[in-house]
Amino acid sequence: MGLTARQEKIAEMVRTLGPITGEQIAERLNVTRAALRPDLAILVMSGMVDARPKVGYFYTGKNALSMVTEQVSRIKVQDIQSVPVVVTSGTSAYDAVVTMFLEDVGSVFVVEPGGILAGVVSRKDVLKVAMGGSDLHKMPVKVLMTPMPKIVVTSPDEPVLTAAKKIIDNEVDSLPVVLLANHQGAKVYEVVGRLTKTNIARLFVELGEGRGGEQL
Amino acid sequence: MGLTARQEKIAEMVRTLGPITGEQIAERLNVTRAALRPDLAILVMSGMVDARPKVGYFYTGKNALSMVTEQVSRIKVQDIQSVPVVVTSGTSAYDAVVTMFLEDVGSVFVVEPGGILAGVVSRKDVLKVAMGGSDLHKMPVKVLMTPMPKIVVTSPDEPVLTAAKKIIDNEVDSLPVVLLANHQGAKVYEVVGRLTKTNIARLFVELGEGRGGEQL
Repeated sequence: MGLTARQEKIAEMVRTLGPITGEQIAERLNVTRAALRPDLAILVMSGMVDARPKVGYFYTGKNALSMVTEQVSRIKVQDIQSVPVVVTSGTSAYDAVVTMFLEDVGSVFVVEPGGILAGVVSRKDVLKVAMGGSDLHKMPVKVLMTPMPKIVVTSPDEPVLTAAKKIIDNEVDSLPVVLLANHQGAKVYEVVGRLTKTNIARLFVELGEGRGGEQL
Repeated sequence: MGLTARQEKIAEMVRTLGPITGEQIAERLNVTRAALRPDLAILVMSGMVDARPKVGYFYTGKNALSMVTEQVSRIKVQDIQSVPVVVTSGTSAYDAVVTMFLEDVGSVFVVEPGGILAGVVSRKDVLKVAMGGSDLHKMPVKVLMTPMPKIVVTSPDEPVLTAAKKIIDNEVDSLPVVLLANHQGAKVYEVVGRLTKTNIARLFVELGEGRGGEQL
């Protein structure tokens, strides 16, 4: 945020003495109330300090990060998602791996007709089975996928931050981006995208470089 | 950043008419110069507008994201790195995979005595070989690893942003965190950590939630 020395001093004063009025701050700094106005406005804008009528200025404990939070919370999954890579549930484990390599993705989504999510298969899942010595040609992908309803999903309008938290908390590499749909009377998920750790890392780089304005 | 309607108006005025003096802005808005002072101070603090003596206010094109950039650029790799998972170069491919599963990591680093980086093996590398039908028990990890000097590395004091960009640009899941060392007269890399997309995603979540202050 780059506060000036005087702003830092005022912030510290509000932190230790608040609630404190503008007049009291001016008096302690030996300046006029008018001279303080820009400094106080900046501290209030930064979120670090807040003001209440007839009470005065008080410290919120927030800092410039609050603004980051506000900016980031507006970015939705649909702003950064990738296209989904899918195989049908009749595919062999071997062909699912071939798809992974061709598309260079860490996991593929297994779908029923209509793009309905049935499961997720990751490199890790396949590697585990391959280590066990099974013949991947003869094994249907169904056998080794993580099936519904065990799959953690996200939706296009979910904030990226919430989705990223799901990725971290559930220790997965990606989430299917889905829409809730009605299929023969049952509630199902239609796969419309893929949110990966790469999408998150790329967004981090863009935001950190001051780009990413198109999402904000 | 949450600018007020008047601040937005001033910013737009500076963008289209700048450089423009405070007096000129005041005149156009039909307010006193003093009344404008807090608004102009906030716009300058935000980095969106800058002022030069005897010239006036001009538009920088920056926005609140510039502040994010400044905050994020201070975070170093060592602030968020994980411990490295290593195997020695004599290990079989099979045992390297077992280590991957035991430690639940997507890649392991292959080291020579003294923790000197020799290569990196990922799930993808192993899966490719396993698909080919090779016996992983008989294959040394050396055969399938990405060897030095083809490995992209980072160091503890590199900004996370630079390291994250390396991960994205080189399409890898992790980077060995290394120190440059002298080994029998040759310059080598000593492995001291591991930076993954998970580390980046976790940092993103922490920053987005307004935490992560300990790194800033």
